[in-house]
Amino acid sequence: MHAKTTIMASPNFTKNCMWLNGKEESFGGNARLLSCLKEIQKRAQEDGTSKEILKWNIHVCSENNFPTAAGLASSAAGYACFVYALAKLYKVKGDVSQIARQGSGSACRSLEGGFVRWHMGNASNGSDSLATQVVPASHWPEMHVIILVVNDKKKKVSSTSGMQRSVETSELLKHRVAHCVPQRIAAIEKAIHNRDFPTFAEITMKDSNQFHAVALDTYPPAVYMNDVSHAIVDLIHCFNQVKGCTKVAYTFDAGPNACLYLLESAVAETMALVDYFFPSNNSGNTVQGLPVPPCNAKETVQAIEAVGMQKQDDGLLKYVIHTRIGEGAKELTDSGTHLLSASGLPLRLA
Amino acid sequence: MHAKTTIMASPNFTKNCMWLNGKEESFGGNARLLSCLKEIQKRAQEDGTSKEILKWNIHVCSENNFPTAAGLASSAAGYACFVYALAKLYKVKGDVSQIARQGSGSACRSLEGGFVRWHMGNASNGSDSLATQVVPASHWPEMHVIILVVNDKKKKVSSTSGMQRSVETSELLKHRVAHCVPQRIAAIEKAIHNRDFPTFAEITMKDSNQFHAVALDTYPPAVYMNDVSHAIVDLIHCFNQVKGCTKVAYTFDAGPNACLYLLESAVAETMALVDYFFPSNNSGNTVQGLPVPPCNAKETVQAIEAVGMQKQDDGLLKYVIHTRIGEGAKELTDSGTHLLSASGLPLRLA
Repeated sequence: MHAKTTIMASPNFTKNCMWLNGKEESFGGNARLLSCLKEIQKRAQEDGTSKEILKWNIHVCSENNFPTAAGLASSAAGYACFVYALAKLYKVKGDVSQIARQGSGSACRSLEGGFVRWHMGNASNGSDSLATQVVPASHWPEMHVIILVVNDKKKKVSSTSGMQRSVETSELLKHRVAHCVPQRIAAIEKAIHNRDFPTFAEITMKDSNQFHAVALDTYPPAVYMNDVSHAIVDLIHCFNQVKGCTKVAYTFDAGPNACLYLLESAVAETMALVDYFFPSNNSGNTVQGLPVPPCNAKETVQAIEAVGMQKQDDGLLKYVIHTRIGEGAKELTDSGTHLLSASGLPLRLA
Repeated sequence: MHAKTTIMASPNFTKNCMWLNGKEESFGGNARLLSCLKEIQKRAQEDGTSKEILKWNIHVCSENNFPTAAGLASSAAGYACFVYALAKLYKVKGDVSQIARQGSGSACRSLEGGFVRWHMGNASNGSDSLATQVVPASHWPEMHVIILVVNDKKKKVSSTSGMQRSVETSELLKHRVAHCVPQRIAAIEKAIHNRDFPTFAEITMKDSNQFHAVALDTYPPAVYMNDVSHAIVDLIHCFNQVKGCTKVAYTFDAGPNACLYLLESAVAETMALVDYFFPSNNSGNTVQGLPVPPCNAKETVQAIEAVGMQKQDDGLLKYVIHTRIGEGAKELTDSGTHLLSASGLPLRLA
């Protein structure tokens, strides 16, 4: 899963322009985009970039290969990519994750590859709240990810406004931040270093539940998961229970879609269970990304039905993404991969 | 809303029998029923009740006028009524709420009328965890209750097992118990004494949300509310927002049904909004209990739609109950109200 961005600067451009997934968006009216641009240009000046190019307007063309504003961190990936590309354009050196945070708080997590840790920091302006790599993706290549995209409208609560309201109104959030998160961060880092999947999985599930608990403790409540999300949670707990060991972990960001972490060895059976319990057109779901081998999961299906899980209505999932832990931001040097034409217009429109 | 119970003791009964809503239930296999019976008989002996009657088997016939095991505290009401009726039969004196708790923890709340406070207590065996009346129902006669019974199967998680798992696994529960609940109890008692509806309503909503947050922080999570419940929450927040003051509060027990608290003056408009946003057969819902006056809520509907609330699918609610704060346990002395015949058999079967 990735965001891909091409940025061009030219003395011929009469204004800054931005196309997101083939649709033109307002640049001048977007305070976050402008803030990132201004910060990067400031750093470029300090680094001695030619003053000329900094005066030119830019054209930005960006595409995600996954849905926008659905709780899949599309804005985090997008801002990380935007800031990384700007840094390349202006030849800015050093870490730019703090600038990416001006666009979307969690964008600082999307620059490094592999498993990253987002540090809370101490500064009141958030300047030391940065992400660092725990291990590269190559440390645990068996770790796979299956994303179940739930058939749902655009989320009602934007994650930024929901989090802000949680900070202001949730009494449980204070306890979570002070007493639960630090212990869990230390324990999950250790589990990642040791490639200890059961521990990694349990912390992941408990922390996802607690994040959504705090969202619900917000006033008025912020509700991101829906009945389909909770049915997915039930399926994963039933699967782990009948197997007698932890095969799969779930986590939900600010939306109803499930992100499942699992080892490569569990992918085929998990996908067979998803297709049985969450059928699409009474059959399997469309899978994007890595291929999934076929699997006969009949015995596991029966064991799961015996502990009370029922086959759900048809068509609750939109599609499924099968992927691995990403490699982080990367410059694409082959001009065949650019999204803008030589004159600065998108090669593909929506 | 009430549970109604008739108990008969006779030397002719060959065993203890129990009918709940017209259906015979196992008595000998129900440890909670047996425990309540044993405790009351022990107290009766201490109080000098004739040894003869304590040897006789009993027939119990009980009916609720609201659904069982749907998160509407049916077992609390049932056990409170059972223990109260037994105490009358055996002429036991004094408070029996501690015995009712052997059946269902929250049954101690259902004996006194009006607004009651359930005290946490300090004893490790829970013997001082009792409920006392804050004010009788007559203190705030304008307070009404509308219960929206959601079209749903029997709840998956029994409230007793869910709470137990929360105590064992939720880290947020500890903080809630130590830091949030005591303050809220004091504040809501004061609001009840002052008949301060906005304060009463805000604490009620926040505490309902926090209870369900803690349930979600349980591992595996306990989920009682569903998409319909959350849509009801949205409607109430939208209604209060467009009115510019708090007209209605919601609270959810261990199930998807909403319990709305509101003053009598807001009943008609609230019911009109419920019928518009949660239609049944494209029209109004069936209302049990007190009648609801008609109301033209067109302007409020438009204002609520303008802030983003949408009309929901048809048939999400099963029916609606309109009631007031109850008067507490009461002995019915008119023999025409008994549920058992002179020979000890139910007068009405399911």
